[in-house]
Amino acid sequence: MDQELLEKVMNQVKAELGAGATPAATVAPAASAPAAAPSMKGDATGISKALGRTEFVGTSIGDTIGLVIASVDPMLKDAMKLGKFRSIGIIGGRTGAGPQIMAVDDAVKATNTEIISVELPRDTKGGAGHGSLILIGAEDVSDARRAVETALQVLPKYFGDVYGNDAGHLEFQYSARASYCLEKALGAKFGKAFGMTCAGPAAIGVVLADTAVKAANVEVVGYSSPGNGGTSFSNEVILCFSGDSGAVRQAVKAAIEVGKKLLGALGDEPKSTTTPYI
Amino acid sequence: MDQELLEKVMNQVKAELGAGATPAATVAPAASAPAAAPSMKGDATGISKALGRTEFVGTSIGDTIGLVIASVDPMLKDAMKLGKFRSIGIIGGRTGAGPQIMAVDDAVKATNTEIISVELPRDTKGGAGHGSLILIGAEDVSDARRAVETALQVLPKYFGDVYGNDAGHLEFQYSARASYCLEKALGAKFGKAFGMTCAGPAAIGVVLADTAVKAANVEVVGYSSPGNGGTSFSNEVILCFSGDSGAVRQAVKAAIEVGKKLLGALGDEPKSTTTPYI
Amino acid sequence: MDQELLEKVMNQVKAELGAGATPAATVAPAASAPAAAPSMKGDATGISKALGRTEFVGTSIGDTIGLVIASVDPMLKDAMKLGKFRSIGIIGGRTGAGPQIMAVDDAVKATNTEIISVELPRDTKGGAGHGSLILIGAEDVSDARRAVETALQVLPKYFGDVYGNDAGHLEFQYSARASYCLEKALGAKFGKAFGMTCAGPAAIGVVLADTAVKAANVEVVGYSSPGNGGTSFSNEVILCFSGDSGAVRQAVKAAIEVGKKLLGALGDEPKSTTTPYI
Repeated sequence: MDQELLEKVMNQVKAELGAGATPAATVAPAASAPAAAPSMKGDATGISKALGRTEFVGTSIGDTIGLVIASVDPMLKDAMKLGKFRSIGIIGGRTGAGPQIMAVDDAVKATNTEIISVELPRDTKGGAGHGSLILIGAEDVSDARRAVETALQVLPKYFGDVYGNDAGHLEFQYSARASYCLEKALGAKFGKAFGMTCAGPAAIGVVLADTAVKAANVEVVGYSSPGNGGTSFSNEVILCFSGDSGAVRQAVKAAIEVGKKLLGALGDEPKSTTTPYI
Repeated sequence: MDQELLEKVMNQVKAELGAGATPAATVAPAASAPAAAPSMKGDATGISKALGRTEFVGTSIGDTIGLVIASVDPMLKDAMKLGKFRSIGIIGGRTGAGPQIMAVDDAVKATNTEIISVELPRDTKGGAGHGSLILIGAEDVSDARRAVETALQVLPKYFGDVYGNDAGHLEFQYSARASYCLEKALGAKFGKAFGMTCAGPAAIGVVLADTAVKAANVEVVGYSSPGNGGTSFSNEVILCFSGDSGAVRQAVKAAIEVGKKLLGALGDEPKSTTTPYI
Repeated sequence: MDQELLEKVMNQVKAELGAGATPAATVAPAASAPAAAPSMKGDATGISKALGRTEFVGTSIGDTIGLVIASVDPMLKDAMKLGKFRSIGIIGGRTGAGPQIMAVDDAVKATNTEIISVELPRDTKGGAGHGSLILIGAEDVSDARRAVETALQVLPKYFGDVYGNDAGHLEFQYSARASYCLEKALGAKFGKAFGMTCAGPAAIGVVLADTAVKAANVEVVGYSSPGNGGTSFSNEVILCFSGDSGAVRQAVKAAIEVGKKLLGALGDEPKSTTTPYI
């Protein structure tokens, strides 16, 4: 993981927040369009003003929207299973669950927030995978907002090792140190390195899982297939594993190489959605 | 709800049935195309004759087809969970569950029929929501046919507050007096006003739910999210509520305003599928 | 079923394998493109070499890929529920579950292999149906490879009675003698004739099921609808039945005729994906 870039991004976000910049302005890239980090910081003040909604935080890649509610109505507290929280941050997109989970994992590290729930709709707009709905709890809504902003800002990075062609997609993630979101959503060992391999059609994902565990000494923490309850009937096989950072990265890298060849056999050469980071 | 228009439509249907008009001719709008009420009554006699199938009733918006079976084969009675019924009406579409449920709710009010089952496939042809399969039971197949006709006829109205753009959709429904279909499918209080807010991506639906319950004094009867069992893994959060008609309508209207702004932040201005009715 | 053609295809495959032909070369039609049997045998040696992956067997219609793993890593044995097997064949596609199940049923008849699992993701790339993931177990990887090759080779045939238009699809299958894959995946009576009717939107599938059982004396072995657990929330009703071959074929043929008319009422005349075989 390009830890340096990540920290730079976070520091910048924090600096701008401290300087009193309009929060919505710092986190609204062009909706849905794959965007490199630099072009993400368009001035969204216009949209935000036109919206005139205090709930709106910003948008990012994958038709992802970030929202906050300062105080959820008591009638919905139980239905939403909010526990002790009344202030929540909301991150959800049509395409992608892994990238949003990674981005929120970074966000909870950097803010005073907790993960309430992570849900995986069957989506990707006709693709083989999941969308996402993540609720973040905070004592203070400003913390929730900061977490949502951080997640939206860093999200394009985690689409970097999502590769696609007309036949399907591959997704790989790597974290040097998994935090609460990866632990809750994907069973990662807290504080240890975490890796994920995923492919749709699912058949390719089976081979990637086998490739990853053979490539390095890692501990499997989750294996999800279309019908085993680990997915929402997506056409994917997903392997999640923890371990030493060197081994985890090696396992992921071995699977990337194989995945691109196999998915490529069904169509064009799979292309990164943004810029590979692993 | 434009109760007057609805009654007019129903009376017309009844009159034409009484006059011995070919039933199929009264209910076949152009398949899948959003159609205003007047243009719906094309002469479908040709199609119907070409079909030459007594089961065929007609088609409507959302790739919705209406069918009847005069007497279901005894071998399928239990598998289909028909209970006491042998004559059934069938309404099902690729896009939309709420509109079909509303339309069938009107239909059971106007005919001597009962709801057997309402099932929600994950569909909308790559969109974020559901399709539908609704079975209607009747003592006499002519009642089932009349119910299916009524539902197909009124269906375009209930796509009126379905708004969409490339990023997703919003759906709102309002009934001054919920009947058996809304009760069975969505937990509505029978005989009371009923409202629904829904959005995909689901994140927007969370804010709409909160907006609705804060806007007026309503009773929540259902909260569905991608992973809580209330949806078929659609990328939606759906809130259903009952209450006094004024309060319910106010809650829905508040959510419409917010929903259009939030979904609009992810793409073009959301457009009604037909003509708003709430 | 065109048993003669099937046997011819199988004999040819066996002959070529015996003659030491590069296996991958015998089974790689153009990815995803509907292909008639003769044009399927392109020389895929280039792709296979470029791939340089021993796991790769070939591709076929429906974005289907065939793979093998000579010895699955012990860490994944339990997660994949492989039982006694270490050598596996993998068949999976984005579009189609029925055709792949039929093709693998042929493959296990012709090879020394067993079915490990059949899973049905909700897919078809925005369509109303399922994709597939089938694991085949073998004592020796060469048997697994042969089974995968046979399945990929015969797969286009079983898309022959998959008919589609913009509104949805119909699927029909017929086997004179069901084997282990049809038994495991769809509840077919082993060794007896097997038939299947399926349509999306699901409403049409209800009428097809009733049509089939009324047309001939067959035994229903499965009825699946969007919400009854038999599907993965696909927008389909699927009927599976066993019986005497004449009766089963008659039931299927009656449903084909009705299905094409009903789906045709929602759009263009439904077209076969390859060439009808029933």
